[in-house]
This record gives sequence, C-alpha cells and structure tokens, in this order.
Amino acid sequence: MKGKPVASVVTAGIACLSCLAWGQGNTVKYQATINNVKYVYASLPPVARLKPGDVLDTNTLDCFGNAIQKPGDTLSMAKGDNPLTGPFYIEGAEPGDTLAVKILDLVVDSEQGVGALAPGFGAINPTNYTPMLVPPLPPKIWFYPIDHASNVATFEALDSKFTTKVPLRPFFGCIGVAPAGGEARSSIVPAEFGGNMDSPEASVGNTVYFPVNVSGALLYLGDGHAAMGDGEVAGTAIEVPLHAKVQVNVIKGWKIDWPRFENDQAIMTVGAYRPLDDCLRIAFTELVGWVHQDYGLSELDAYELLSQVAKIHLNEMVDPNYVVVASIEKKFLPPPKKR
Amino acid sequence: MKGKPVASVVTAGIACLSCLAWGQGNTVKYQATINNVKYVYASLPPVARLKPGDVLDTNTLDCFGNAIQKPGDTLSMAKGDNPLTGPFYIEGAEPGDTLAVKILDLVVDSEQGVGALAPGFGAINPTNYTPMLVPPLPPKIWFYPIDHASNVATFEALDSKFTTKVPLRPFFGCIGVAPAGGEARSSIVPAEFGGNMDSPEASVGNTVYFPVNVSGALLYLGDGHAAMGDGEVAGTAIEVPLHAKVQVNVIKGWKIDWPRFENDQAIMTVGAYRPLDDCLRIAFTELVGWVHQDYGLSELDAYELLSQVAKIHLNEMVDPNYVVVASIEKKFLPPPKKR
Amino acid sequence: MKGKPVASVVTAGIACLSCLAWGQGNTVKYQATINNVKYVYASLPPVARLKPGDVLDTNTLDCFGNAIQKPGDTLSMAKGDNPLTGPFYIEGAEPGDTLAVKILDLVVDSEQGVGALAPGFGAINPTNYTPMLVPPLPPKIWFYPIDHASNVATFEALDSKFTTKVPLRPFFGCIGVAPAGGEARSSIVPAEFGGNMDSPEASVGNTVYFPVNVSGALLYLGDGHAAMGDGEVAGTAIEVPLHAKVQVNVIKGWKIDWPRFENDQAIMTVGAYRPLDDCLRIAFTELVGWVHQDYGLSELDAYELLSQVAKIHLNEMVDPNYVVVASIEKKFLPPPKKR
Amino acid sequence: MKGKPVASVVTAGIACLSCLAWGQGNTVKYQATINNVKYVYASLPPVARLKPGDVLDTNTLDCFGNAIQKPGDTLSMAKGDNPLTGPFYIEGAEPGDTLAVKILDLVVDSEQGVGALAPGFGAINPTNYTPMLVPPLPPKIWFYPIDHASNVATFEALDSKFTTKVPLRPFFGCIGVAPAGGEARSSIVPAEFGGNMDSPEASVGNTVYFPVNVSGALLYLGDGHAAMGDGEVAGTAIEVPLHAKVQVNVIKGWKIDWPRFENDQAIMTVGAYRPLDDCLRIAFTELVGWVHQDYGLSELDAYELLSQVAKIHLNEMVDPNYVVVASIEKKFLPPPKKR
Repeated sequence: MKGKPVASVVTAGIACLSCLAWGQGNTVKYQATINNVKYVYASLPPVARLKPGDVLDTNTLDCFGNAIQKPGDTLSMAKGDNPLTGPFYIEGAEPGDTLAVKILDLVVDSEQGVGALAPGFGAINPTNYTPMLVPPLPPKIWFYPIDHASNVATFEALDSKFTTKVPLRPFFGCIGVAPAGGEARSSIVPAEFGGNMDSPEASVGNTVYFPVNVSGALLYLGDGHAAMGDGEVAGTAIEVPLHAKVQVNVIKGWKIDWPRFENDQAIMTVGAYRPLDDCLRIAFTELVGWVHQDYGLSELDAYELLSQVAKIHLNEMVDPNYVVVASIEKKFLPPPKKR
Repeated sequence: MKGKPVASVVTAGIACLSCLAWGQGNTVKYQATINNVKYVYASLPPVARLKPGDVLDTNTLDCFGNAIQKPGDTLSMAKGDNPLTGPFYIEGAEPGDTLAVKILDLVVDSEQGVGALAPGFGAINPTNYTPMLVPPLPPKIWFYPIDHASNVATFEALDSKFTTKVPLRPFFGCIGVAPAGGEARSSIVPAEFGGNMDSPEASVGNTVYFPVNVSGALLYLGDGHAAMGDGEVAGTAIEVPLHAKVQVNVIKGWKIDWPRFENDQAIMTVGAYRPLDDCLRIAFTELVGWVHQDYGLSELDAYELLSQVAKIHLNEMVDPNYVVVASIEKKFLPPPKKR
Repeated sequence: MKGKPVASVVTAGIACLSCLAWGQGNTVKYQATINNVKYVYASLPPVARLKPGDVLDTNTLDCFGNAIQKPGDTLSMAKGDNPLTGPFYIEGAEPGDTLAVKILDLVVDSEQGVGALAPGFGAINPTNYTPMLVPPLPPKIWFYPIDHASNVATFEALDSKFTTKVPLRPFFGCIGVAPAGGEARSSIVPAEFGGNMDSPEASVGNTVYFPVNVSGALLYLGDGHAAMGDGEVAGTAIEVPLHAKVQVNVIKGWKIDWPRFENDQAIMTVGAYRPLDDCLRIAFTELVGWVHQDYGLSELDAYELLSQVAKIHLNEMVDPNYVVVASIEKKFLPPPKKR
Repeated sequence: MKGKPVASVVTAGIACLSCLAWGQGNTVKYQATINNVKYVYASLPPVARLKPGDVLDTNTLDCFGNAIQKPGDTLSMAKGDNPLTGPFYIEGAEPGDTLAVKILDLVVDSEQGVGALAPGFGAINPTNYTPMLVPPLPPKIWFYPIDHASNVATFEALDSKFTTKVPLRPFFGCIGVAPAGGEARSSIVPAEFGGNMDSPEASVGNTVYFPVNVSGALLYLGDGHAAMGDGEVAGTAIEVPLHAKVQVNVIKGWKIDWPRFENDQAIMTVGAYRPLDDCLRIAFTELVGWVHQDYGLSELDAYELLSQVAKIHLNEMVDPNYVVVASIEKKFLPPPKKR
C-alpha cells in the first residue's frame, strides 16, 4: 500500500512530535509466529525495515507464546516468556537520536485472555529477587472470555461462582529497542531501552519515545495486555495476542536517557528500575528536565509545579525492574519552545 | 445545635458504613488557634468530646501554623510543623474497634496558599533520611492566590513570568488517632495510626477508618491542602488553613490494622511506611484481606482480580514514611456480606 | 559507695572522650523488675539520677521479660517486647549536648538464653512491614544453655541432634534516650534516639554517644544479647537478662544527629532507618562529617579514604527500622583536632 | 608447561570442593591488552580453552583500561569501564553444572593505583539510578603509590598534606560467566552470573562458584582492586591491573542459582541485586538452602543458627546492582554430607 508523502526524518526543533501530522508513509506488514519471535532485546538481524513515517502492521503473541489455551494447560507449556515480534530497523535512526512510535491501532487477537499466578512473580508473594523462606503460592490460571462486541473481558473466580466484567484497554506490555553498550536483555526486563514496561500508556493515542542506541534503533513489540490493574500485582495482566499498527519516526539529535510518552494532553516520563523509590526519582528528574528544557520553566519552578499537579502511574512492581510513569498535563504548562 | 436522633454506636455487621445514613447527631464546635494546637499524635487530654453520629465543626491551621504570609517570610517563622487540631474523644470507642470519620465539608480558610522547598524534604533532593554528600536545595517559598469564586489557586513562577491555574481539591494532610502501645508520634509522620498521610482521599465524600488504640480514639486533624500532585514531590502541597465539618462514628468489634477509606464507589487501603515497595505490600495485603473478608472472594481470586482492576494512588514520597493507597471499585465486586 | 572526684560535666573541646580518664564518680545502684520496666522511650519520670562520671550498676530483663523459661512456654507469655530499665536522669544534660555512655561491664544474668521465630519478625520471612500473601513461619523457641565458665552458649537443633557452641559476646540490644519533639517510641524501634539498635557495638570497651533531646537525657537500657549474628536475621539473638555497669558523661555543646560509638581503635556511626540503602547513606554522611569536623580532612578526601578502608557492620534487618554501623579505624586518620 | 594428572571433571558428591586437592592440570597463559578486552559478559568466542584442573595464568587491566596514569588525566580517557579478560571456555561445563574457580595468586601489576569520584557513581551522592535534582560531585582522581616490598598503598589527600598507608589485599572486582537466557550484560553490572561483584572474597585462598549457563561457562576476569573498604562507597577501590593465576574446575550436576564462595573456614553466598534489602534476602535464602542441603540442618534450625553466628559483608552499594555476601564458619556446622 502506497501512502502520502513521507515525513522523512524529523529534525530536532519540534517540541511536540506527537501533535504533528506525520504524513503517511508506506505500510509494512509482518507476521509474527512462534518460530520467528525473540526472547531478548539485542542487536539482532532485523526482520523488516521501515522508513520514518512508515506504518508497521503486525501482530504479537501473548506472553506465553499463545501456548495456554484451556483448563489443564500449564505454565511449563510456554517455550519462553514474552516472545517478541521484531526487531524492526528504522532507517536514519542513529545513536543519539530518539525513536518515536505512535500507536495507531491495537486489537485483541483472540477470544480469551489468560491470567496466572506464576512462581517467582507477584508484588505480595515471594519472588526470585525478594525471596523468602516460605513456600511459594501455587501456580494457578484464570481464563477471561473476551466479548469483542461489548469490548469486555470476564473475570471468572476459580473458588466461587462470581464473575465480573473488565473493560478492554489493550496495550503493549513489551515495547523497546536494542540496549546500549552491546547489552542483550531478557524480554521480561524493563530498563532504559524500554522493554517489559507493562505500561498501559503504550496504547492507542500515545506516542512513545526511546533513546536510539544502535543504528536502526531495532524496535521490538510483544506481551499484549487486554487490561491491567495498576501495579500488575499478581504478576500478569489479561494476557492476549494483539494485532497492531504503529507508525515510526526519528527525531534527529534529540538525546533522551529513558523512555517517554506523549499525547495531546500530557507529557510522561518513565522510571524503570528498582526499588520503586528509585523509579520515582528517575521519572521525576526526567520530568523536571523535560519541563525545564522544552517549556522553559526553571528547574525549581518545575519541581514546585509538579508537586501540585503531577500524576504518578505505578505500572508494575512485579518484573525484575519496576516501572513508574510520572506526568503533567500540558494545560498546566507554557507553550513549548521550538526545538 | 440539636440534631436528629443519633446513630449511636454502630455494631459490627455492616460492610459499608459509609453508605449508611448515619443520622445526625449534635454539632460540636471547636476553634483551633496557635495556642491550642498539638505537635504529636498521642494520648493527650481531649479538647472536646463527641458521641457517635456527632458532627465536628472546626478549623485547622496550615502546616506552618499560618506563620508564612508574605514574601520575605521564612520557614523558620513556623513554631512547628503540622500543628494539629484536637484531640477529640469519641465516646464508646475502645481498643479493638474502628473509628469512622466521614468528611462532610472542607473550605479553604484563607486567601492564599503556600508551597515551599524546605531543606530535608522532597522526593528528588537529599533529605534527612536519604542524605547525600551534596549541598541541599535552597529554601524557597511560592504563594498561591486563591479565588474562591472560581475555586482555583494560581501558581506563579518565581524565575519567570509564567502563571497557571490549579483547581482546588481540599483535603486533610493530617488525620489520625492516638497510636498504639503508648507511642507519641510526630505530626510529620504517617503510620498505622494515620497521621501525616497526605492522602487526597481525606476529602469530602469519603469516610476514613482508623484502628482505635486508646479509649476515645483521640482524633487529630490538620495540615490542610488546597490541592496536591501525586507524590507531593517537592515536599509540600498548596498549604492552607481549613474550615471543616466531619461526622464521627464507631464500629464496635471491627479490628483493622491500617487506615482505610471508603465511598459509594470504592474501597481503599493505606500502606504508610517505607520504602514504597513495602507501602505497596501493606496496602495490597490489606486490600486482598478486605475483599476476602467482606466480599467473599478467596484470597487468590481477590489477588488475581486486583491484578486486573486495582488502582494505586501514590500519595507522597516525602515524609519520614511514604504513603500508597490501593483501591478497587465496588462495581467489580460481589455484594458485601452482612457483618 | 563513694568515688574519686567526679569528672563533672565535660566541656566541648575533646575529640576522643572515650580515650579520657573519666575519673570515678559515685556508683548508683538500681534494680529492674517486671514491675518497674518501661515499654517506650519517652519523657517519663526518672527512676534514678546520675551525675556525669557516675557509674550505674543495674540489670536488664530479657526481651520477653524473662517470661520464657522452659519448653512449652509460648511467646504470648511475654507481657511486652523489650522491657526497658530506666529512665535515668543525667544531671547537666540539656538539648544540644551529647550523652556519653561508657560500657564497663556486662554479665549474662541467667543460665540459659532464648531464641525465637516470632510471627512478623525476620529478614527472610513475611513481616508486619513487608507483608506477603503467604502463611507466616510457625512460632518456635530455641533454648541455649549457658556455660559461664567457658563463656559459651550451646545451640541445640530442634529437628536433629546437632549442637554447636557459640562464644558469648554480650551487649545491649536496647540502649537509648528520650526522643526529640515530644515523641514516645516503642521499645522495638531504633532511630535517632538509639533504642532497639541491636548493635553488638553496645558492648564492653565501647562508648556510645546519643543526642540529648530533653533535660537529663533519660537513658534506657534493655534487651540483652549473649551473642548475635550479623543482621539478627531470624529476628532474635540469644536473648538474656544482663547485669550491667555503665559510666555516664555529658559533652556540653556537641550536637550530633544520630548515635555514634567510639573506642580506642575506631570511630563508628549509626544509620537506623529503613530501607538498608538509607541506613547506609545516613551512617556514611555522618562518618564523613565526623572525619571532616574532628580530623580535618576535606569531605571529598574523607569520602575517598572511606571508600578504601571503611567497615560496615549490618546490625539488624528485622526491627521496624534497620541498623547499619559504619566505621573507620583511627590508625588511618590524622590526630583529632582539639575541640 | 605440563602438570600433574588432571582432576578432570568432578562429579557431584563432594560438599567441599575447595577443600580437595584438585591435582594440577596444565597451565594456560593468556595476555590481555586493551585491544582484546571485552565490555560485556556474553556468549562471545573464547580466547582460550581450559580443562578442569587447568591453571590460567593471565592479567587484567584496571577499570579504566590503564588509561589514567598521571595528574591531569581524566576519566574520559578510559575507552570503557571494566575491560574484561576472556572469555575462557572450560571444557565439560554445561548448563546445570557449577563452575569452580580457585584463586591461586594475585599480584598488583603496577606501581600505583587509582581512585576516582566519577559522576553517577557513589553511595552518598546522586547517581544514574538514584538521581537527584542537585549538581553532581565534581570528578576527582586520587593516585595511590604502591610499595610492593611493604605491601601497602599510600592514600594522599588532595586538599591537605595528610597521607596514610593502606595494606594491599588484592582481588578481582569483576569475575563472572556468560549470563543465562542469551543475555549480554555490561561489565559494570553484577547479578546471577557474577560480574562486577566487587567482592573482596574474590581473592587468594577462596574458591568462587558460578552457575553454568552456556557450554564452556565462559569465564571473564577484570577490575583488579588493590584494596577496598566495605561498600566501595565513593564508587571505586584502589584500582589496579593484576597478574593472576586461577585454577578452574567443574562440578557436574550441582545447580546453583547465584554465585557462592568457599574456603576451608567458611561457606559464603552472594546476593547481587537491588535494593540492599533484597540482596540480603537473596544471600540468606541461599545460605539457609546450602546449610540445609549440604549440612543436613532443617531450614528453620539453619535460620535460627544463622541468626546467632552469620556474618554479612556488604561489598558494594555503588554499581547498578548492589552486593552482599552472607557467610557462616564451618566450625559452627555439622560435617557436610557426601554429595
């Protein structure tokens, strides 16, 4: 499919990339299967190449590689955790630039979702990195029938007859790029390169920014969630495969240290480390910096203003690193500087 | 002022106290001044006594004791931090019971609010309990003119000409009771007894529950906030005196370990300790327990459901203990058991 | 018993109080029993008064109030945790001064010690402040026969026939003063006022310094440990009553923020908060400050030197606050300034 | 150089590998230079192959790649942090086995060591993962002349004329293997694969054990420290190149999850994550498990015994993950089971 004239590489000087008309590049289609997924964010050979402005039309498997389908299936049937679609090479993206990914469309690609208690995962049970001298919780699996017409999933209690409906709000649990310094990171870890952020912000209407660490950035996608509570406390969301369309772009010469989100209403920064105290410190030093640099408030004025109007979204406290998103609505800010 | 027949002491057996008509007891008026405030939550002689169902009509000073009024005033002019109105003795409240405080009305009791960078406070600067070998931030004070007609405060940048309007959403930064075990705790600390929780949930329409640790519970109020961002990251909210009306009640034989909030839409639990990781663990073990005991889901079903629909509100990461509120909307729950 | 001329109040100007001959004041005897112990550090009426230079000859009950004596006894038989002997009023000690307590003699005052797994305590099991959605460990009690001749306690396994001998190194688990700001703190909490530090440094040959927060300082002692591993990981040491002699002194005009230890070989600082990361930050900013102020190195030289020769003793990670002691041997330092 | 009959691959069934005579295999020599070092722990092509029992005779560059040599040199002159010698392929090592590395000899390979304050590193200054809204400390470099005859390094203050002597106790700051799951990890990170543990335990007389994650294990060495204080608080030790001899062995069928150390006196476990609280939890659950499995105590008896006699060595709180070593002396344990 041929698109309108492409936005090509965006040069720095634009404070709100997500607010721009990006034009419409070509659409690049790619089909992920259990045989071509990856389990690390790394400098691997790309499966496809996109130009800035191009739209990627692809799919992701669920965090179990779509292996858990019916009562009696077990967690051990998954070949690996969080199989990733990609990587995708974005032309023109070089270290020191920022990759922008605008999420255009996300559709749950199954008739049910899966939730699970898995040993070693969870916010209020012993885990691999907060181990305790007590037996782990038993593994358990919940299936969530999905009604596409009404856009809800149904929680069905295992130990009683109770059911309740959960509205679908699909997002990528995993979205990230090749890490810096030659690292290869597991698909269950979020960090500076994004990754398993489990951010509901990675949903339609938002643009996510990543630091570019290698030529082509190398975008990975996966771990679709149909819906998720704050903190993802029991260790999983409503896990689903997704059909997805995202548009990519490159901001030349804009160097960021951690992922960021943006939409018409707000700017958002990510802290993805451990413990939560440090996640929050990372997210807020990033947010003060963004307000200072692009909106012109002094650092201390920005700090004070955030103390009165900032929002904190605690995405997850269950992965090997935790994730906090801090944000401020643009209505509280001066107009952005031209960059 | 004489009220309608009083609800008297509520006996356990009611799962949603806040949803009840409490009747209307007497209104007890009390005027706080800088000369009768307290600086600890403790077993001090009460300033007034209320019966269950009574309405307390009182006021609170701001966190600086209303001492900072104009440019040039300094933080050292405050006689102490978070002066508290109270304590109020609630008849019939005994250890092992729960005190319920329904917040009926909160009005900002001044023409301006105050925000400040104070040495030792703040989420992304060195503090007394996260000290660093670097100079502290300079003390700074922001004044927020308040427009009662439009219900907004105005942020005025110190280092540029920028101003922006912040909607008023007043709440008690401090609300708590005498601690257990004969402790007396500073008015800047939140913990099991409530205290300096800086919870925007302590606002009109919500009921807050506290464990009763001593006869009469001994309720304290203070530290009004006209508005506050999540995390209160720079160390203060828009600090204001308040005029307040709250109604008190006692739930006999309902023993809770940490403060809780409730309204018609949601149940909410508080984790008030340090670090944030443990705040979250406290809040969620409390919330699983509440859902299990009052709504009848098994613990693991409750845990899974929370993983899909829970909300986390990170209230503050700046006091000597931090505060997280976890919640679930009642629409996702079965009807409560009769208690 | 009449002593030699008393050292009286020491005026600031002495960098190593513990190295001084303090003279020998009177000996004040006091007998603690379960009927006169306290359970909070607070401004309570003193049980005895000492002059600077006086020696206190007293005893402490074990952390269970000596209630657990034989197999079959249970944790619930303790009337409270960590009963405290005191408070002792030290004449001349005023806020802004430092109280010095030189530990002269500690003798285990029983034929056995007690160790226990108690619900809510322990470094690798769920606790009150790191709760988990798993069952707690079962309560268990170990008895340690004590051989005063050979100075050892014997560990006797409960689940096998294994025994092993542990050398006695008695110390006060609890040693502290009345807190600042009118607080009263539980005898299980360590913080700025000392308290339940569980520091093996609180042993014969060391002097411990406390900030004086109220007139007379109000010294409390308790929670004897016959021996303890680093971290006190299962929640108790070998718990014993003690017979103790300590000498007190006052350093006028030396204001410290956290407890400190000193002996002829080393200076030691305490960080007593939570999490461990912040304990360490407190202890090391204190230690850099001490080296800088009393030994004349610049702060950055002190920081670098500590990076090469500091010692860290992780005392405990089981109380409501954790405790780290950081130290440097005096042999690595210049001669102290005269203060 | 030809050795005595080789120990070959050790089969499981030996509880104290380090206590065994390993025989004497061949000596394999390898010369590291700035042109053949690596900056990640990963599955890279090996630079040499060893059989179990072989001795590796090699060298390591300092953490700056030996680039900082004289006053005026700057941190930016280092091509990368912690250049690694290796990887070395150990024959017979397969996933599920344990690699044993006995450290035979370590000699400081220079006439001076280097210490530095580097932006983003340090326990009590803002870092990349505990960022603060305050200026960083200035970069600074200290040179430590080394006297090989007396085995001391000399600290020379930058801001005064003070000098002091620090005894040499050389060890590998970096020692580790290829990570699991296809990860490649930066040479500044410690984790399950070992790595930048900054453990003084990685010194002569100790054997270190690593989980084998890939065929050949792939051993890396680097980051020599002539001496280091607990915590490595300012961010570096006395950084030096080393000349080293280590002997390698493989324990078939012994699967461990985290690195361990052992010598004739003690068994030691590593927790290498973040925050310190979790390091300690990892190290102690590992140590309870080791005592339980190899020495036959029940888990709860082991936990209680550790509470009385364990040692904790806080290695560092400055890298992207922190490191705690927990240990127990063998004299407190029953004889090990034959494995």
